[in-house]
Amino acid sequence: MKISQKIQQSSKDDKVWWSFEYFPPRTAQGLQNLLDRIERMRALGPEFIDITWNAGGRTSDLTSEMVKTCQGLIGIETCMHLTCTNMPKEKVDIALKDAKQHGCRNVLALRGDPPMGKDEWEAVDGGFVHGIDLVKHIRKNYGDYFDIAVAGFPQHMSLPPEDLANEIRWLKEKIDAGVNFIFTQMFYDVDLFINWVKAIRAAGITIPIVPGIAPIQTWNGFQRATSLAKITIPQSFRDALEPVQNNDEKVREIGTKLVADMCRKILDADIGVRGLHFYTMNLEKGTKMLLEELNLVPRIETIKPLPWRQSLTPNRRQETIRPIFWANRTKSYISRTENWDEYPNGRFGDSRSPAYGELDGYGVWIKQTKEDALKLWGHPETMADLSALFVKFCMSELKALPWSDQAPSIETSVIAKQLAQINELGFLTINSQPAVNGARSDDKVFGWGPSNGYVYQKAYLEFFVNPTLLSLLITQIERDSNITYYVINRRGDLRTNNHSDGPNAVTWGVFPGKEIVQPTIVEAVSFMAWKDEAFELGAQWAKLYEHDSPSQKLISDFVETSYLVNVVHNDFHDPDAIFKPFYKAGAEYLALKSKTTAVNGH
Amino acid sequence: MKISQKIQQSSKDDKVWWSFEYFPPRTAQGLQNLLDRIERMRALGPEFIDITWNAGGRTSDLTSEMVKTCQGLIGIETCMHLTCTNMPKEKVDIALKDAKQHGCRNVLALRGDPPMGKDEWEAVDGGFVHGIDLVKHIRKNYGDYFDIAVAGFPQHMSLPPEDLANEIRWLKEKIDAGVNFIFTQMFYDVDLFINWVKAIRAAGITIPIVPGIAPIQTWNGFQRATSLAKITIPQSFRDALEPVQNNDEKVREIGTKLVADMCRKILDADIGVRGLHFYTMNLEKGTKMLLEELNLVPRIETIKPLPWRQSLTPNRRQETIRPIFWANRTKSYISRTENWDEYPNGRFGDSRSPAYGELDGYGVWIKQTKEDALKLWGHPETMADLSALFVKFCMSELKALPWSDQAPSIETSVIAKQLAQINELGFLTINSQPAVNGARSDDKVFGWGPSNGYVYQKAYLEFFVNPTLLSLLITQIERDSNITYYVINRRGDLRTNNHSDGPNAVTWGVFPGKEIVQPTIVEAVSFMAWKDEAFELGAQWAKLYEHDSPSQKLISDFVETSYLVNVVHNDFHDPDAIFKPFYKAGAEYLALKSKTTAVNGH
Repeated sequence: MKISQKIQQSSKDDKVWWSFEYFPPRTAQGLQNLLDRIERMRALGPEFIDITWNAGGRTSDLTSEMVKTCQGLIGIETCMHLTCTNMPKEKVDIALKDAKQHGCRNVLALRGDPPMGKDEWEAVDGGFVHGIDLVKHIRKNYGDYFDIAVAGFPQHMSLPPEDLANEIRWLKEKIDAGVNFIFTQMFYDVDLFINWVKAIRAAGITIPIVPGIAPIQTWNGFQRATSLAKITIPQSFRDALEPVQNNDEKVREIGTKLVADMCRKILDADIGVRGLHFYTMNLEKGTKMLLEELNLVPRIETIKPLPWRQSLTPNRRQETIRPIFWANRTKSYISRTENWDEYPNGRFGDSRSPAYGELDGYGVWIKQTKEDALKLWGHPETMADLSALFVKFCMSELKALPWSDQAPSIETSVIAKQLAQINELGFLTINSQPAVNGARSDDKVFGWGPSNGYVYQKAYLEFFVNPTLLSLLITQIERDSNITYYVINRRGDLRTNNHSDGPNAVTWGVFPGKEIVQPTIVEAVSFMAWKDEAFELGAQWAKLYEHDSPSQKLISDFVETSYLVNVVHNDFHDPDAIFKPFYKAGAEYLALKSKTTAVNGH
Repeated sequence: MKISQKIQQSSKDDKVWWSFEYFPPRTAQGLQNLLDRIERMRALGPEFIDITWNAGGRTSDLTSEMVKTCQGLIGIETCMHLTCTNMPKEKVDIALKDAKQHGCRNVLALRGDPPMGKDEWEAVDGGFVHGIDLVKHIRKNYGDYFDIAVAGFPQHMSLPPEDLANEIRWLKEKIDAGVNFIFTQMFYDVDLFINWVKAIRAAGITIPIVPGIAPIQTWNGFQRATSLAKITIPQSFRDALEPVQNNDEKVREIGTKLVADMCRKILDADIGVRGLHFYTMNLEKGTKMLLEELNLVPRIETIKPLPWRQSLTPNRRQETIRPIFWANRTKSYISRTENWDEYPNGRFGDSRSPAYGELDGYGVWIKQTKEDALKLWGHPETMADLSALFVKFCMSELKALPWSDQAPSIETSVIAKQLAQINELGFLTINSQPAVNGARSDDKVFGWGPSNGYVYQKAYLEFFVNPTLLSLLITQIERDSNITYYVINRRGDLRTNNHSDGPNAVTWGVFPGKEIVQPTIVEAVSFMAWKDEAFELGAQWAKLYEHDSPSQKLISDFVETSYLVNVVHNDFHDPDAIFKPFYKAGAEYLALKSKTTAVNGH
């Protein structure tokens, strides 16, 4: 979606919005951390993010890569910076083509800083000389596809009048070449900004202006940034910050109040500004504190249009349904389905065959390194050891399992005890959700989708289990006509009591003025595609241990002989009902085992 | 659906099923009454119905017409009789082609009775001589498309052994030509029937047998039917019925018990019979009493797979969503959309453009004759008169309005008082439904769909209203963010506060193992198509009155100046919430009117 549309909508609703800027990090580990952080900070409700272009050229591919990940995997609207520095036309076009392919519709066109090691800016052979050339190039070659932003410099207000007039004239020319909105450079002097806005408006510039806000995180950082860009620091800022300059925490605390105060003045200034663009410096805390101080909380629909993270690549934008199986492995689902012609919208299965990509095609791997894995999971040697690991995971005392890269979600914690209990009994769960009978769509734990709606879930459990315990469970399950299940072994023999043709919707929402949204389903074909992955993850876990070691044998045998089972309780009114057959079967299994032990002991 | 499939499924589920036979009536009025009756008797849960072929040929088109109506409009699986009497091959093929086109997949192939006025059966030129010829013809020309049934005669058990043997041999030959199941002729001697089943089974006939059951409705009818077909009457029947032969009620009461007893014996006889085919004689009461006596109650999913009646014509079988507007005028909706390439399945609007047929194409008419209409609605001369008619309709004291052919449904009666109140205030309602927050799917009033499900509705009101009252209402409505509305005038100017792209689901159901079913929606394009019809019905009502008469002027002015409005309250938890803005706006309107009157009176 174009940022100008978001700006327009926010103006209409008179709602304040905000966005975050990040830069490509220097290391692979840094990249992973940043992506995790972007994903986390999404919960702070930015309308979009933008990613700077690294002038050195060394990391320019990284910018494209990050745009792809943010649009496609994290599902957040992204604006890509593009500079003329060291960029021949061909490289510019590759970057724009990639951006378009990944669904990015916003570009900030900049001349950029001088090339590394130079003091003065210089054009590269076959490249652009001025920002306006880049703007014209994008407009000419991509029509209206992209929103184009340019940078504005409130600090120019401190230039001599003639220089200021020239700067404004150049800005106006650039904008007339087809620019949609302006991001400003950072500033701390709010009057300077307001006067600059008035000056450029007086010059006939009417497009939206988004002020760039740099949270104050440390004294040194603040000093460096302001002196580099020759930013005016109001005396009040110096007076408040200098006395505490050696106390980082104090600097951040006072800085937050100062910058928040500045933001409030901007929003109250009646100059039409409704949005704030935060220069995060890839840091989390300063931006978060600032938003809290400003009392800016995200709208639920901004952060969770669906219970899972939507992709914003062009062909996936209409996708509104996914199978529940990959809930903890989104990336793998997206990879395995990225070649689909169309994605399910409203209904799963009708319009497309679930042509899941082959396992080999995208590679299944346990996220942890061998070292981390052994540290996390130790060397289980008995089924009790194994089951204890799963119990710990359910109780959030273990941060990952081969099937889940992260600790259980908050909503799972509602049933943590019940999950722990059935894991103890030998049902090793790898996925679950509690029943929800119409929580409000803004519910902190279960909510998603637009305001004034209600969301629902059918209780779901997915687990590995041995054949004896399974058969006791099935007997119990078949007494409750509300339970549907699918059982499969590694070979792919499928058994189910669900004779309905289509999928089973296990998450749905009812919203004003809309069709029912049913974003998560359980379905046979998808389950069969998922089971390969589920068993493979188990096999990989086994392989982490030494050949023929007790741990390897335990896990390997377990995976080979277990069944993978999913169970849905279709009556979403009773959240405990799904567990009852498990308790009963588990108790029978214990009795059976102790009898066998007794006989064997005899 | 083929009846043999239904039989197979019932055997598998070990469920008793039943079906009804009707014959084409002689008059147009009789036809309408019968169709109404078939529709009503659908609630008794027959798995299918069948329609006899009239031997005279005079009404044979009527059989085709009835098959079309039953499959398409009433939405009940229908079996068509087809006889050789007076039927050249061409007529047979026309009948079969029509049946196929209407989605009928079951044919009972008979030789038929002798032509009218003849004692002996004779073939027509170019026609078939024996039932077996007809069976062969259908199989040869229509492959497996049709299930073919033939008649069986348990009464043959009373023939001399040699004749019986011949009859069974002929039956076997006919069946070997490609028959799927057998309907038997009526009988009252259960032993005769059981012995006959055993005899034909012994002869190698393995296809399902469906016994024909004729309820005893009057003594004369019983006598006539049995003597005509030379049916054995057990002595116990005579002993019980003869003493009360002049008391119709007694005959029916005792007859019901006798026949019910016979049915129980058949079902208990361990001969694989799970179905009963009732010869209704186009009557309702006898069959109904028999089913009650047998304690056979329809499964909810048999009678209401969706809240509205599904069409069973081939191209509409997948249709699962309709706009709410035509809820009281199904026939008109089906006519206006019969040329659609595909019907919405699961979602409305995505796969097809709502290319509603033109008004002229199918004709809008008030169902009542002018005479009936005037009797029903009198000569209203003031808005108070008009509003009083609508109030009476809401309270079920008036059986029809131009927009509704029949009294309000049971579910509407839940909100009858509230509806009456807002009609009194000047909102003349033509459609409505109460809010339902998860009634069980077998709920007597609101239930539909498979067992163990929950059904929901958003409150809905549709009405005509004058501009002043409308503007007071809109002011009230806009205070409740949960209400969405569409307003339109006769010219087609549309106004709405629903800015969502798609339709608003106003009825939906959640069932075990299934996607969410959302069969009724509110949607702009459909509303615009419907408004032509809604206004036209009003205009036609006006035309029933004499030119320039006060009634004509009143209704005509009302229709011309009113707005047609639909309102959905999106929070289905509070059934009263939708009415509040109406009460408030109505009160303001009254105050305004009395002020105006006071000023004018001054």
